[in-house]
Amino acid sequence: MSIEHRLNHIAGQLSGNGDVLLNSVDAHTGEPLPYAFHQATGDEVEAAVQAADAAYPAYRSTSPAQRAAFLDAIANELDALGDDFIQHVMRETALPEARIRGERSRTSNQLRLFAEVVRRGDFYAARIDRALPQRTPLPRPDLRQYRIGVGPVAVFGASNFPLAFSTAGGDTASALAAGCPVVFKAHSGHMLTAAHVAGAIDRAVASSGMPAGVFNLIYGAGVGEALVKHPAIQAVGFTGSLRGGRALCDMAAARPQPIPVFAEMSSINPVIVLPQALQARGEQVAGELAASVVMGCGQFCTNPGLVVGIQSPQFEHFVQTLVAHMADQGPQTMLNAGTLRSYQNGVQHLLAHPGIQHLAGQPHTGNQAQPQLFKADVSLLLNGDPLLQEEVFGPTTVVVEVADAEQLAEALRHLQGQLTATLIAEPDDLRAFASLVPLLERKAGRLLLNGYPTGVEVSDAMVHGGPYPATSDARGTSVGTLAIDRFLRPVCFQNYPDALLPDALKNANPLGIARLLDGVNSRDAV
Amino acid sequence: MSIEHRLNHIAGQLSGNGDVLLNSVDAHTGEPLPYAFHQATGDEVEAAVQAADAAYPAYRSTSPAQRAAFLDAIANELDALGDDFIQHVMRETALPEARIRGERSRTSNQLRLFAEVVRRGDFYAARIDRALPQRTPLPRPDLRQYRIGVGPVAVFGASNFPLAFSTAGGDTASALAAGCPVVFKAHSGHMLTAAHVAGAIDRAVASSGMPAGVFNLIYGAGVGEALVKHPAIQAVGFTGSLRGGRALCDMAAARPQPIPVFAEMSSINPVIVLPQALQARGEQVAGELAASVVMGCGQFCTNPGLVVGIQSPQFEHFVQTLVAHMADQGPQTMLNAGTLRSYQNGVQHLLAHPGIQHLAGQPHTGNQAQPQLFKADVSLLLNGDPLLQEEVFGPTTVVVEVADAEQLAEALRHLQGQLTATLIAEPDDLRAFASLVPLLERKAGRLLLNGYPTGVEVSDAMVHGGPYPATSDARGTSVGTLAIDRFLRPVCFQNYPDALLPDALKNANPLGIARLLDGVNSRDAV
Repeated sequence: MSIEHRLNHIAGQLSGNGDVLLNSVDAHTGEPLPYAFHQATGDEVEAAVQAADAAYPAYRSTSPAQRAAFLDAIANELDALGDDFIQHVMRETALPEARIRGERSRTSNQLRLFAEVVRRGDFYAARIDRALPQRTPLPRPDLRQYRIGVGPVAVFGASNFPLAFSTAGGDTASALAAGCPVVFKAHSGHMLTAAHVAGAIDRAVASSGMPAGVFNLIYGAGVGEALVKHPAIQAVGFTGSLRGGRALCDMAAARPQPIPVFAEMSSINPVIVLPQALQARGEQVAGELAASVVMGCGQFCTNPGLVVGIQSPQFEHFVQTLVAHMADQGPQTMLNAGTLRSYQNGVQHLLAHPGIQHLAGQPHTGNQAQPQLFKADVSLLLNGDPLLQEEVFGPTTVVVEVADAEQLAEALRHLQGQLTATLIAEPDDLRAFASLVPLLERKAGRLLLNGYPTGVEVSDAMVHGGPYPATSDARGTSVGTLAIDRFLRPVCFQNYPDALLPDALKNANPLGIARLLDGVNSRDAV
Repeated sequence: MSIEHRLNHIAGQLSGNGDVLLNSVDAHTGEPLPYAFHQATGDEVEAAVQAADAAYPAYRSTSPAQRAAFLDAIANELDALGDDFIQHVMRETALPEARIRGERSRTSNQLRLFAEVVRRGDFYAARIDRALPQRTPLPRPDLRQYRIGVGPVAVFGASNFPLAFSTAGGDTASALAAGCPVVFKAHSGHMLTAAHVAGAIDRAVASSGMPAGVFNLIYGAGVGEALVKHPAIQAVGFTGSLRGGRALCDMAAARPQPIPVFAEMSSINPVIVLPQALQARGEQVAGELAASVVMGCGQFCTNPGLVVGIQSPQFEHFVQTLVAHMADQGPQTMLNAGTLRSYQNGVQHLLAHPGIQHLAGQPHTGNQAQPQLFKADVSLLLNGDPLLQEEVFGPTTVVVEVADAEQLAEALRHLQGQLTATLIAEPDDLRAFASLVPLLERKAGRLLLNGYPTGVEVSDAMVHGGPYPATSDARGTSVGTLAIDRFLRPVCFQNYPDALLPDALKNANPLGIARLLDGVNSRDAV
């Protein structure tokens, strides 16, 4: 079997100076695929960051039209990748073809949405306070503010979305939209996928006339640390485990110049099933919930890991129905062996806990994940048992029964930060339990009603973020157009002549964008 | 002499359980003033944070009108403080009466501006993506996003602005505007001032019907650590030294739940004098610059600490004129003995450096600060000598002569992050040196042309921030209305009924605010 080599992408060139070779693995069989990836050397990490840094001045000065065209070009190149690409992603991740094709569309549409955001121009957040030369006691100078990209951004690929949260995924798209060059660290679970996408981006860079260092990709274990610690890197995007995310945050905070890290990490995504809803459609909810828990083998950040209801015959019946549904679910192949190992460990910890009862699920055999259902005593939530707060990444969920409305609120108050919190409720429930909404708002980035948290729309209003440990900074989102804000900083010009101002702030408003002009939203010229 | 006691303010009550008493000091004489401040005990810090946390749900739910009225009420109470207040601030800080009255107006107007921001409602950053039930392959749910306050905020008073950056200053005003209760740690240099202002805020809380814990003030050395480490605190505002700010950042990053810190720290605020400007008005610039350096005894975050020009007879003449002006400046009393000590140390380090030449200034005697002028070899900048990068807080500045335009750019490239960067330039200079602007943009939060950085307008477009070490997070500003963004996080509602949505997101747009509705800015109802 001949081995093909894949090299790091640095400023549009391929580079493989190192001797350490990494394997890509068939996710179904665990067998190595015939591709060898050259781990980036220290010099190559340095070169990738230097390339990004060198590209920054020219790239951030591109016009909205140029930058949007670049994002569109990446989207088109991604969509043009052939069937070999789809086959390779399937082999590396064990995800089914429909999912991969869907995820590719989501990823290219995400790039196109950011192109729209760039054209819309509100990301500049332009503000103009005109001079008030006659003001007393002191005149006011002319002040104009807009936002620029913070500088080169390091992005870490996520295991669970080989496309949408990886090489050309949301972090890369929002950083590029903000005017920040990217150094992307490929995830070890889908390096061949990353190579395909990096090639697509390289072609878009070339055809759009962008500076070559605007995108760079490196492979390797341990290269992330050098990347995050490099002085030219100005922000970090990450999706993954709490342990991995926190390690990056700690590194970034300990730098001579600390930098922000946007790590999307651990969330158990509570689903609260309220009494009238159980009365009206408990069986249906149980079926839908089971489907949400096992969807994509439970490998979503927003997988529902906790189901809470108030003690009642209806809740008992609901749980029995859920048990039946979960017992029906077959095993699935996970993204990679590490993910399966980690899932088994999580399940073992739940099985071993004296306060937790196993309700459904087959014992582990072979190399697939078995869906599992557990029930935990409410005291575990009330006493802050860490086991119940930690995400078990995979097709499992934990049911908790509370005594009454008061204990429900108390249990929710003990939750840590979440990406999502869901109410399953009838109108009567909402009247009775309205006070839960502000409580949940304090816990999560997204509140759903009568839906399931898996499935994250890419749009202006989406928030895929939330208080720690869901993310490292509740003020950001990694999905939706607001994600661009993470990589922007404001700059103010005082008494600058029109010719030296950026287009976003020029008197004539040549970009035609909305600006806050003397405190009023306006597209007018000054 | 009878001693009056001043106690901590916790949820509108005075509390002095501790035995440790702190003195306030007459800044002119160094003599203790007849006031004893009760350092907060551990229990009192806990009580203050608990009060803020308890106030958060009610406070963040106040309507914009209520919250704005509260901010206006604080402004009015602050303006109503009597002459005894002014006298006390003068005694504690040695600042002249006109400055204190001016700073009070600035502080109350800042509160009123934030009241306007709250009424304007754009801080909600409301976004609505309407449901698309017919979309294929999947329907889009109804998604609505707005921003809420992050939770209780710890604010540290700044030594150099006893009003505008202290008890009711910019951090407090922006946190309160965002819907975040505040626990304020008084600066040891003006505790009596803080007591007056805290009383004013307490009265405004009561008269506005706000929850009592929305504002709390604690005194003490070392209480800041307990405050920043308290799990209920969700963000920190600080203005002060690099060492102090970095210590808070490190503490916040090491918490079980890391939290953001907005520390405004160290900036040398380079002023670049360009050839044609020196030719046209070098003498005038020298006079203005000297005035800016010694203004307020150089105790501004934006004090110009570095003056850079290109070698020429004109620059030589400019430096000679600057020497004459600086030699003419008399000594001034600093804010407190610690500030004077720190200034003397900074001056000593400059005097002792072999690459730095002393150009003007009297030797230190007595308890006042003597203005000083230095000249440093450009190699110090090019080699990254830390001495030249560090702010010397006080009436001093360092001149650097560069060989040519190329060396000028190279020297500026070696600067660390700054609050401001200033060009003194004629139109011909701007044509010749236009490439400096993007370079400076990368270094600073505010770029000035033909002005002096001292004097920071409080408005929508102001940025008082910048890359590290000017601040701990270049994406924030501590002056101007954008300061509110530091304390807000987005929340998204998916398929929520109108009745349960916050007013900012209701169909009818009852607040009448601008919203991004399906990607278009609009005040329309849905």
